[in-house]
Amino acid sequence: MEERLKRQLDFALEIDKEKNIFRQTHLSGHGRRENDAEHAWHMAVMAYLLREYSNEEIDIAKVMLMCLIHDIVEIEAGDTYAYDEENLKTQKEREDRAKEKIYSILPEDQKRELTELFDEFEGNRTAEAKFAHAMDNLQPLLLNNSNNGGDWREHEVTAKQVYGRQEKTKLGSEALFQVAEKIIKDNINKGNLKL
Amino acid sequence: MEERLKRQLDFALEIDKEKNIFRQTHLSGHGRRENDAEHAWHMAVMAYLLREYSNEEIDIAKVMLMCLIHDIVEIEAGDTYAYDEENLKTQKEREDRAKEKIYSILPEDQKRELTELFDEFEGNRTAEAKFAHAMDNLQPLLLNNSNNGGDWREHEVTAKQVYGRQEKTKLGSEALFQVAEKIIKDNINKGNLKL
Repeated sequence: MEERLKRQLDFALEIDKEKNIFRQTHLSGHGRRENDAEHAWHMAVMAYLLREYSNEEIDIAKVMLMCLIHDIVEIEAGDTYAYDEENLKTQKEREDRAKEKIYSILPEDQKRELTELFDEFEGNRTAEAKFAHAMDNLQPLLLNNSNNGGDWREHEVTAKQVYGRQEKTKLGSEALFQVAEKIIKDNINKGNLKL
Repeated sequence: MEERLKRQLDFALEIDKEKNIFRQTHLSGHGRRENDAEHAWHMAVMAYLLREYSNEEIDIAKVMLMCLIHDIVEIEAGDTYAYDEENLKTQKEREDRAKEKIYSILPEDQKRELTELFDEFEGNRTAEAKFAHAMDNLQPLLLNNSNNGGDWREHEVTAKQVYGRQEKTKLGSEALFQVAEKIIKDNINKGNLKL
């Protein structure tokens, strides 16, 4: 088998590990915790279905791919909970090391392409990155809301923290931010989110 | 919230259930079985990375979306193992009913669009459908090969059965069919696949 194809298949097998990186979010119905691969799949489908709500015009194929690959670095770096202040400090350094290691399995051109796409997501400046971030925030919000805020209650998350995170949703979609805001208010009223 | 957005979000929550539809394939390292959402994610990423091996020119965004949604019907219809002759007979009828039920949650235009895309995948006549099928076959082959053919041994699958399935890979990609063929031969030699 030629070297290029071998590297691509090695990478395909390596990312299988993403299915064992578990997040704090629980699946709807409050069963087990969700893993990164499931989260990425869910985000990509949602991005496609909700693309009409993007603030700016977007290349939806690029957004979907961004959603699909945005957590691959966590195979090495682990998941960092959105409200874990301590681990958030070291997140970028850990993920940069992981990025270099994992994407180096690919042929050089694809390493460069996916690294750039990941960096674009992280930079959160382009229309595509902003909409992908809106999905990254809205998806767990929907699940958590469906579970009566169980994840927030478990981690004693405050409304202010959730608002802070959902600010990024607003950059990608004003319409979906309104959904997020309504969910936050409902969960404050139910006592699931502390003020 | 307007009706359209409400239906889209209801659908987004409904498909969360795909994460609990388990396949016969085990994750690499022979841990637990894989679920449909993980499988779809893996296929979509692989489709992007391996698109240069498609026999025909493809719209990669369409292939990725096809990969992402192709198993949503299984939320209602259940997974049908590729070598389960009995359940394969009723698969189409079960999936058609499921398709109508699940996609009806969406606004009419999106129901039509995703139904058509699913039908295109099932029909396996367009370049995109053929390449998506190649991914649907290659992805579990890679995992199973990495597990020393454990799933085949468990179900006493024959080389002929696997060849039969991988014929579809050939329609999408001659180059990737060669990979599949090599894997099948290796596993015959190791005694993982019966002749």
